[in-house]
Amino acid sequence: MDIKQACEKMKKLERRRWAYGHAMSLLSVDGMTVAPAESYMGRGETLGILSEDSYDMFINDDTGELLEFLSSNLDGIEDPAVRREVVLLKEEYDKDRCIPKDEYVEYTMLLNEADAVWHRAKADNDFPAFEPILEKIVAFNRKIAEWYDPASSSRYDTLLNEYDRGVTTAMLDGFFSRLGSAISPLVKEIAKVQDRVDHSVIEGVFPIEKQRILSRKAMDYLQIDPKRCVLGETEHPFTESFNKYDVRITTKYHDDDFLDNMYSVMHEGGHAIYEMSYADEYSFTSLAGGASCAMHESQSRFWENLVGRSEEFISYISPTFRELFPSLEKATDRALYEAANVSMPTLIRTEADELTYSLHVMVRYELEKALIDGDMKVHDLPGEWNSLYRKYLGIEVPDDTRGVLQDSHWSGGSFGYFPSYALGNAYSLQILSSLKKDVDFSGCVASGNIAPVKDWLTEKIYRFGRLMDPNDLIESCCGEKFDAGYYTDYLEKKYSDIYGL
Amino acid sequence: MDIKQACEKMKKLERRRWAYGHAMSLLSVDGMTVAPAESYMGRGETLGILSEDSYDMFINDDTGELLEFLSSNLDGIEDPAVRREVVLLKEEYDKDRCIPKDEYVEYTMLLNEADAVWHRAKADNDFPAFEPILEKIVAFNRKIAEWYDPASSSRYDTLLNEYDRGVTTAMLDGFFSRLGSAISPLVKEIAKVQDRVDHSVIEGVFPIEKQRILSRKAMDYLQIDPKRCVLGETEHPFTESFNKYDVRITTKYHDDDFLDNMYSVMHEGGHAIYEMSYADEYSFTSLAGGASCAMHESQSRFWENLVGRSEEFISYISPTFRELFPSLEKATDRALYEAANVSMPTLIRTEADELTYSLHVMVRYELEKALIDGDMKVHDLPGEWNSLYRKYLGIEVPDDTRGVLQDSHWSGGSFGYFPSYALGNAYSLQILSSLKKDVDFSGCVASGNIAPVKDWLTEKIYRFGRLMDPNDLIESCCGEKFDAGYYTDYLEKKYSDIYGL
Repeated sequence: MDIKQACEKMKKLERRRWAYGHAMSLLSVDGMTVAPAESYMGRGETLGILSEDSYDMFINDDTGELLEFLSSNLDGIEDPAVRREVVLLKEEYDKDRCIPKDEYVEYTMLLNEADAVWHRAKADNDFPAFEPILEKIVAFNRKIAEWYDPASSSRYDTLLNEYDRGVTTAMLDGFFSRLGSAISPLVKEIAKVQDRVDHSVIEGVFPIEKQRILSRKAMDYLQIDPKRCVLGETEHPFTESFNKYDVRITTKYHDDDFLDNMYSVMHEGGHAIYEMSYADEYSFTSLAGGASCAMHESQSRFWENLVGRSEEFISYISPTFRELFPSLEKATDRALYEAANVSMPTLIRTEADELTYSLHVMVRYELEKALIDGDMKVHDLPGEWNSLYRKYLGIEVPDDTRGVLQDSHWSGGSFGYFPSYALGNAYSLQILSSLKKDVDFSGCVASGNIAPVKDWLTEKIYRFGRLMDPNDLIESCCGEKFDAGYYTDYLEKKYSDIYGL
Repeated sequence: MDIKQACEKMKKLERRRWAYGHAMSLLSVDGMTVAPAESYMGRGETLGILSEDSYDMFINDDTGELLEFLSSNLDGIEDPAVRREVVLLKEEYDKDRCIPKDEYVEYTMLLNEADAVWHRAKADNDFPAFEPILEKIVAFNRKIAEWYDPASSSRYDTLLNEYDRGVTTAMLDGFFSRLGSAISPLVKEIAKVQDRVDHSVIEGVFPIEKQRILSRKAMDYLQIDPKRCVLGETEHPFTESFNKYDVRITTKYHDDDFLDNMYSVMHEGGHAIYEMSYADEYSFTSLAGGASCAMHESQSRFWENLVGRSEEFISYISPTFRELFPSLEKATDRALYEAANVSMPTLIRTEADELTYSLHVMVRYELEKALIDGDMKVHDLPGEWNSLYRKYLGIEVPDDTRGVLQDSHWSGGSFGYFPSYALGNAYSLQILSSLKKDVDFSGCVASGNIAPVKDWLTEKIYRFGRLMDPNDLIESCCGEKFDAGYYTDYLEKKYSDIYGL
């Protein structure tokens, strides 16, 4: 076997893995969007069979030899993108083969079932109904961490690395402590002057049909091609990308809140933009997608917050608001901007304002650390959750539906993902600061011509897909190492202005 | 290997085939319903890979030996259902292995592409854009027929057998000639007294939102469990069943016609009822589904026409019509019934009345015979189509969108399916005649309590899945061989009554 032949064989393997991933992800997306409730049994059967075949196709001596050969001949591969493919694929191979096949298949089917169980438990405010399956998921995640890196002193570090390479609890402890020090005093100051901003200007009843028009407007603003990305509806919005020409995002509608939907569209739309913009030649390879979860969240939060919650964007979109919702006719742009940025400790992470958002993430971070590395039992989650909401946000959680059952991450098996949201916020501000050196960001957002912003981000970040680790990408994009200071500075400035602190 | 082990191995193989079928069908359904337009490229890749793996998994020496062993030991298998599974699976194996793998994969990908091409061509009234891909599909179907049965004197007979075992052109020539003889004089008589029925009572504008409520009512009437079957929207309504707990049906809405949607729901709902009612133990085996395509159509037409277009049903549902659509407030039940049964030669098969419906099928039957067995070229299809509409229905086809491009069957590779519609109509009347001996059909339909009708059909037909050939099933259900006379009698009686002939 020569290097060229081996590379071709690897490309074929990547394409095959991608195809199985596509089919299995579509089964999941369909399950979360249009499939009837009792479909989960048949879907579980199919997922079990496809995941077994997908495992067998990847984890075997043939693949092992191929990747070993390529890894030891990296210098002979000219294209740096192909070298990176070898490295990423070899890592995945080494990890996946640690997992016994029967456990891998069983876990795939368990997650399919867990989604339905979580939905029912959330609807019924019935944590005990979710507890047994969540226990299994936690146990499996602890096992995964041990299989992947038996030498690691922290299982949670190993899981964090799955979402963001190089991130550790040591690093996050420092990061969250810095965030907490910046956010807590602001939250306390704002509490004293809460009535300086009038939220009531955006309260009312906003018909879902009208909100659907607003969703369309938001998609158009983001210049998302509807021939390549469609919008659906789910209780918990998400983005799934099958390839850069087939991206699905979802939103949710509440008739007493038109901004919640619009910001869901802009958040998931941000993920979609990233997924639609990697280099064409990375399609169906290990390089397709975003550099890491935090880098992905940096882009969803960029479009949701740095664009969507800016004074410039609110001024741009406010005529549409007034046209769709007559009750807003008399609200000034400044009043709408302030109301859209009311900061107050609340129950639901996805609906939190920018300032208190990271406090929600800190709650989940502490709980995950305790579940994965510590002695905490799943049974004690609701109590611990409620006590941390008291501690960090100073509020009482009235029921588990609005508490521990609110997010779909744990039912989906994601332990170690939540910190990506806070890291993503911090990345987004550092990236923005760099972008502003080249692009008239305010002008673009205010005029609705966001092409220069998208182009800059594509040039500096999107087109690279998974070619670089997130730390390297930040450095290549911003010319310096990661620095959370841009984020804390932004929060202080923005909220001091809004609340006149 | 003993028989028990061999049977278990076969069951595992069936389940595996079913899983791949599930994934591939979902990719198609998603493509037809929610996927963005440009998704077809990635979907084609995945379908290509899955169909190749699915082929390899089924067509190999191992399967050959297994099915050979079981076929020669049929007497040693106690359960008649398992014996039938062996027979059906062996037949499929013998057919599939005639198809070269690369051609099989290529054809799967071709059909995926053809769906998108047909959609665009139909929208643009552009047959030439569809012609090249349709030529390939026709050529492939001719080849399939030769691979399957090289000795057959008629390729079209071989294709017909794919949809309805035992049906031949010889049999259909007689059947359609009998139908033509019964229908043509009626159509001519009605043309003379066309104004005896007033269609204008159901003309108007019917908001889609209201029509969606009517769809829900129709689903409820049919007692279709929404936890097992969901309704979507497509240009060309269809039913897809992944298993008996996961069925998808679609409808279409036009705001100038509320009945078109309602009857689409009842038609596809009829298919869904059949798919949701086979014996539980047939799940994931070759026995899951309906006995044949014509038998399936007999049930869609049963619920659409024999129930939905009956005077009893119209009287039952008319208060809902009047509640949803104020313009119908003054229409009597009889006027609504007559208007819903206006008979007149029209352009679109799926919207045709019961009387002229089979004339549409006859057009397609003649064209398919000529394409598959004769010398007709795809290029000549539009002209031939238009000339047959002149001959059978006496109308001019104004454009290909409403002519040769109207149906999705050919872009989906189905040649030989259309006759199932007419056969299904004939089956449905013979079955109804038998059902009426045991069940108060009129009373059930009029009262909305259709459970006794569904129960009877489940007992006599649905629960058997694919256990029997359609001819045997008709005989077991009706106590006599297939007889088209019930259908022609019904048409004569119904339309003589409505038009006072």
